Amino acid sequence: MVTILFSASDESWEKYRAPLETAFDAVGLDVTLSTRHDPETVEYIVYAPSSGLVDFSAFTRLKAVLNLWAGVEAVTGNPTLNVPLARMVDPGLTSGMVEYVTGHVLRHHLGIDDHIHNQDGVWRPEAPPLAQDRRVGILGIGALGAACATTLAGLGFDVAGWSRSQKTIDGITTLSGTEGLHAILARSDILVLLLPLTEATRGVIDGHALDRMPPGAVIINPGRGPLIVDSALISALETGQIAHATLDVFATEPLPRDHPFWSHPGVTVTPHIASSTRPPTAATVIAENVRRGEAGEPFLHLVDRDAGY
Amino acid sequence: MVTILFSASDESWEKYRAPLETAFDAVGLDVTLSTRHDPETVEYIVYAPSSGLVDFSAFTRLKAVLNLWAGVEAVTGNPTLNVPLARMVDPGLTSGMVEYVTGHVLRHHLGIDDHIHNQDGVWRPEAPPLAQDRRVGILGIGALGAACATTLAGLGFDVAGWSRSQKTIDGITTLSGTEGLHAILARSDILVLLLPLTEATRGVIDGHALDRMPPGAVIINPGRGPLIVDSALISALETGQIAHATLDVFATEPLPRDHPFWSHPGVTVTPHIASSTRPPTAATVIAENVRRGEAGEPFLHLVDRDAGY
Ligand SMILES: NC(=O)c1ccc[n+]([C@@H]2O[C@H](COP(=O)([O-])OP(=O)(O)OC[C@H]3O[C@@H](n4cnc5c(N)ncnc54)[C@H](OP(=O)(O)O)[C@@H]3O)[C@@H](O)[C@H]2O)c1
Ligand SMILES: NC(=O)c1ccc[n+]([C@@H]2O[C@H](COP(=O)([O-])OP(=O)(O)OC[C@H]3O[C@@H](n4cnc5c(N)ncnc54)[C@H](OP(=O)(O)O)[C@@H]3O)[C@@H](O)[C@H]2O)c1
Repeated sequence: MVTILFSASDESWEKYRAPLETAFDAVGLDVTLSTRHDPETVEYIVYAPSSGLVDFSAFTRLKAVLNLWAGVEAVTGNPTLNVPLARMVDPGLTSGMVEYVTGHVLRHHLGIDDHIHNQDGVWRPEAPPLAQDRRVGILGIGALGAACATTLAGLGFDVAGWSRSQKTIDGITTLSGTEGLHAILARSDILVLLLPLTEATRGVIDGHALDRMPPGAVIINPGRGPLIVDSALISALETGQIAHATLDVFATEPLPRDHPFWSHPGVTVTPHIASSTRPPTAATVIAENVRRGEAGEPFLHLVDRDAGY
Repeated sequence: MVTILFSASDESWEKYRAPLETAFDAVGLDVTLSTRHDPETVEYIVYAPSSGLVDFSAFTRLKAVLNLWAGVEAVTGNPTLNVPLARMVDPGLTSGMVEYVTGHVLRHHLGIDDHIHNQDGVWRPEAPPLAQDRRVGILGIGALGAACATTLAGLGFDVAGWSRSQKTIDGITTLSGTEGLHAILARSDILVLLLPLTEATRGVIDGHALDRMPPGAVIINPGRGPLIVDSALISALETGQIAHATLDVFATEPLPRDHPFWSHPGVTVTPHIASSTRPPTAATVIAENVRRGEAGEPFLHLVDRDAGY
């Protein structure tokens, strides 16, 4: 009998309870899963950073924390957490992100907003270039970024990706390091941010970075709000250096009602809906990790606490 | 020396002249290509139905007419045309159509318009379903429709296609006949029209067809305007049976300034820009067809004059 604490919102519990029980069953694990357990008995915590649990010291038998979210910036720095931390890599989450990113890249590529806004009776038959003549850059080509890069390249876009370690992905120009960052910024008509938030990535899109981009470039940020210096983005939108920004994530969420992003004509705010973890597929990933822990096998999707992701 | 008449707009001539000369060269053909030739000397006509040429009787040595457009409804019925007629199948045209259709399907799937219109400071974190839970129907799965179907299925959409003859395409539900039409209408949250305009397809989307669709369905028409009965579509938009229509093609083009489509909030008009033939790739297709004609090989992309496409 493995003791598992579910530490997330009541709403999550309702959505996850049945899929988790099914998934534990499927891997042959006998578990006691609850939102309340005596801390000293808990072996695994299925965890959402928003749950309010921040002090892990009482969990003396804890073997691992299994994050329900892809982003772990709210937990990597927690000094009371001394066991392995796994983040969420979920096929459902990846599909949703690919759909969001592909949809917004095509929206900007095709100039769909102009059609939506200009229903004025004037026939302006100007066709966009083909995707092969549109350069898309993706900062962060991990689980999500690489899937987006591959799909966009499949549609014909000229795609480059940037990561910490140098990678090789078929059909994508891959870059790394500071020089790689400068190169990808200079060649991105549309730039997608899919970096985790770490000390190294905070504010990576500042005024200098925006200046390096082609005039009139577009930014899509479904990564994390503080990757961008908000004031620098607003300035670049004012000068036209950046033509449009579609932002899903923000330093403060919900985005405050009086934040200039809401009213700026060059910004589309989406309310952190780019992609969410889907209980049926995510539960399978969690059950597999508990199975591995019990079998003494290495955990999947472990966070590198030093790198911060 | 093969005598070829280019019969299209002056603007087309400017764009096509050099690519065509390059393409004829590449297949080793010695041609005299001009916008003016003595009719009795002409062996092939590179043709746009908008060129004004409607009487082909004077072209006594004519071997074939090579259409610059994918749609041939303006020429199939021409009784003075008694030689093979080839339509345009161009990889550039196909790519552009796949981009347009994928972009607009994702736009409606993700509810992007709601985000664009509701920048009012209210955080409404409702995520769309995954593509796997969205049913897309494509009427016409020829060169363009099949490419769109395959791309959308690759993104995870639940795709069905309808054609005259029963087809088999990996990962797509294929339907044909009247029963097939009823079935695809009933299961399409988003319906894409990529049929040619023929006697059999004119008005296929009438009030009865719209009534068969799921309430709140979306229509995307980059095929031909008269596939839809405009008044029936307006009525279905009024009742909400159809939530939105994105229309690229119209019975009269340019769409008259006072047409209700321009002002209807449920309609997005795009000015016949879904996709255009790209001279470099299209020229290659035309040169290959002239080469075939001269070598006595069968032409590519021949129109079935009885079927009308
Ligand atoms: N908006 C939403 O709904 C939503 C949903 C899910 C996730 N997200 C965000 O998306 C982020 C990415 O998720 P993921 O699963 O793709 O993460 P991941 O697999 O860990 O990939 C992260 C990528 O960023 C790169 N990277 C990290 N630090 C870097 C640095 N200092 N310089 C250059 N590249 C760096 C990594 O490089 P290496 O490949 O060299 O390690 C990797 O390519 C998450 O952290 C989360 O913030 C948002
Ligand atoms: N908006 C734009 O910019 C633009 C650009 C290019 C083309 N177009 C339009 O797109 C149309 C399609 O082009 P395409 O190259 O894909 O044509 P295509 O290869 O000839 O394909 C036509 C498809 O429609 C089906 N079809 C024809 N008549 C039918 C009927 N009575 N019932 C059921 N299915 C029928 C055909 O069935 P079978 O497979 O059984 O023959 C085929 O699947 C063109 O005709 C043109 O009007 C628009």
